[in-house]
Amino acid sequence: MTITLTSPLDMHLHLRDGDMLKNIATCSSDTFSGAIVMPNLVPPVTTLGELIAYKNRINEATGDSSFMPYMTLFYKPTYDYKFLKSFGSELTAIKLYPAGITTNSEGGVSGFDIETMRPSLEAMSELGLPLCVHGETNGFVMDREAEFVSIYEKLATAFPKLKIIMEHISTKESVGALDRFENLYATITLHHLLITLDDVAGGMLKPHLFCKPIAKRPVDRDALLRVALEAHPKVCFGSDSAPHPQHAKESCGCAAGVFTSPIALIALVELFEKHGKLENLQKFISDNAIKIYGVTPPNKIITLEKSTMKVPANYGGVVPMFANEELSWSVKNITKSSHE
Amino acid sequence: MTITLTSPLDMHLHLRDGDMLKNIATCSSDTFSGAIVMPNLVPPVTTLGELIAYKNRINEATGDSSFMPYMTLFYKPTYDYKFLKSFGSELTAIKLYPAGITTNSEGGVSGFDIETMRPSLEAMSELGLPLCVHGETNGFVMDREAEFVSIYEKLATAFPKLKIIMEHISTKESVGALDRFENLYATITLHHLLITLDDVAGGMLKPHLFCKPIAKRPVDRDALLRVALEAHPKVCFGSDSAPHPQHAKESCGCAAGVFTSPIALIALVELFEKHGKLENLQKFISDNAIKIYGVTPPNKIITLEKSTMKVPANYGGVVPMFANEELSWSVKNITKSSHE
Repeated sequence: MTITLTSPLDMHLHLRDGDMLKNIATCSSDTFSGAIVMPNLVPPVTTLGELIAYKNRINEATGDSSFMPYMTLFYKPTYDYKFLKSFGSELTAIKLYPAGITTNSEGGVSGFDIETMRPSLEAMSELGLPLCVHGETNGFVMDREAEFVSIYEKLATAFPKLKIIMEHISTKESVGALDRFENLYATITLHHLLITLDDVAGGMLKPHLFCKPIAKRPVDRDALLRVALEAHPKVCFGSDSAPHPQHAKESCGCAAGVFTSPIALIALVELFEKHGKLENLQKFISDNAIKIYGVTPPNKIITLEKSTMKVPANYGGVVPMFANEELSWSVKNITKSSHE
Repeated sequence: MTITLTSPLDMHLHLRDGDMLKNIATCSSDTFSGAIVMPNLVPPVTTLGELIAYKNRINEATGDSSFMPYMTLFYKPTYDYKFLKSFGSELTAIKLYPAGITTNSEGGVSGFDIETMRPSLEAMSELGLPLCVHGETNGFVMDREAEFVSIYEKLATAFPKLKIIMEHISTKESVGALDRFENLYATITLHHLLITLDDVAGGMLKPHLFCKPIAKRPVDRDALLRVALEAHPKVCFGSDSAPHPQHAKESCGCAAGVFTSPIALIALVELFEKHGKLENLQKFISDNAIKIYGVTPPNKIITLEKSTMKVPANYGGVVPMFANEELSWSVKNITKSSHE
């Protein structure tokens, strides 16, 4: 039994920089033809020069011209039309972080004053640049995303031509917002389709499954599964894969993030097969994203077969989801063509 | 500024066995005059011989005759009146674990069939032996305790003369049950009075604050604080202090338990002072427990003064709550008398 997927895309990816980038870049480029690359470096990506230089470092690290890094800026309300237009096709989207809400987000937005944000968000609307949002308030950890839905609604109403991507949604409330606003879209991670808080903290505590937003209730996971498995046209895959060294995860203050890049595609095939929805995976993993973002990814055709794959314990010291476990599918063949 | 407390009691304590017992026993005996000692060893304590031998090992480990280990059995529905009577005053209470719900609880109760439990629980009622219960279902981690309240109610109704102690309560639902049933009592830990899930998983993940039941919502903590600070007569302190080696907490599958024994009394003084309720601490830390359990603890008089104490990084490799932090009170003087 095999399945062939064309140009898988990861619409939310943390590639980091320096040694970590070199260590894990091919974990994405091996099975994806492109990815929306998050800008939360230290310092964050906020200029054209930084963006191009980072893109070049990524391409050097993957060494794979059939993998396209779609670059993003770290949102600031001071961005204006002229500034954003100067990026041309180098800029695919802009990522908005509420201040202090996750790794390296200290310089993010405090308060969501529409008039302060208007010049930048209207410029993005005109330029067709999607706004990718980490949607959490600073409230109680299980309520943060549901509380943020009212901010999504405020933004969606005030800027009806702005494509707003609710990133890594984890709740039924965010799923519910999808269909109420034409300009709200969403990415969903692999891990939020698979786990709940029970998997993180219901038995032993599992630091490698600790992420932001934190995994929620079964009813939330079921709502996410429903729109992913049906390949809801406003939803696409975004791994939010976030590598941290093993010692930073298994420690007194464990950093947030699940590292899924190397196994995400295979685990998604397993998941969609389990639910009898393999026929919808091409849309969830690529077609929907191509339509939402208007991108043309490199042609990368991946054939997977139903044969067991043992997941490594780590990738250069970064522990992946399913470490040391077996997945029921594996990559059989890849045909690539360059984006250059 | 000083406060003097008489015979502090910890009505829910894990002392473990072997090297760990030797390592941490004095962390309790230094500032408490007695403790209800949990029986979940491997294998659990289920016979008089095991109970006496364990008590002797504890006394040897503390080397402190002003500390009384109040011994418990691991509940089994097969216990009968004759068997339980044979323990005499050596047995203070019996601990019931739902099967598999926490550390070393595999042999616990599955299902709560009243008729199966009737002989043992009626024997306990006649002998005046309290039943200490870890009240969690195997449901979703945030709902487990609230779901268990109906089982508490079933037990309390079926056995009206049985003293049932709801151990380490963590929810407003358990607090609510206290006043609806005359024979329901509760212990409350230090950590459930201080933290919520936000402290465990709202920022970085904090394995040393991971426990069962998991810390809940602010509204739950507030309900616990209310009955603790007023020293509700059916509530007493039980630390549920549970030592694990540092490597077992900072690992891929972190064991549940917060180690509070060495700092619990000091942190409670700080907490009660902060809320202007220092005058109620004697009841919460000792008087209520003496009345509920009918025990006569060794006389241990502890004077604490308002001067800073730096909490050690670890006690023989076990990391305490507030490790490396400062508490605003410290022990000034202790007067002991023997229980022999």
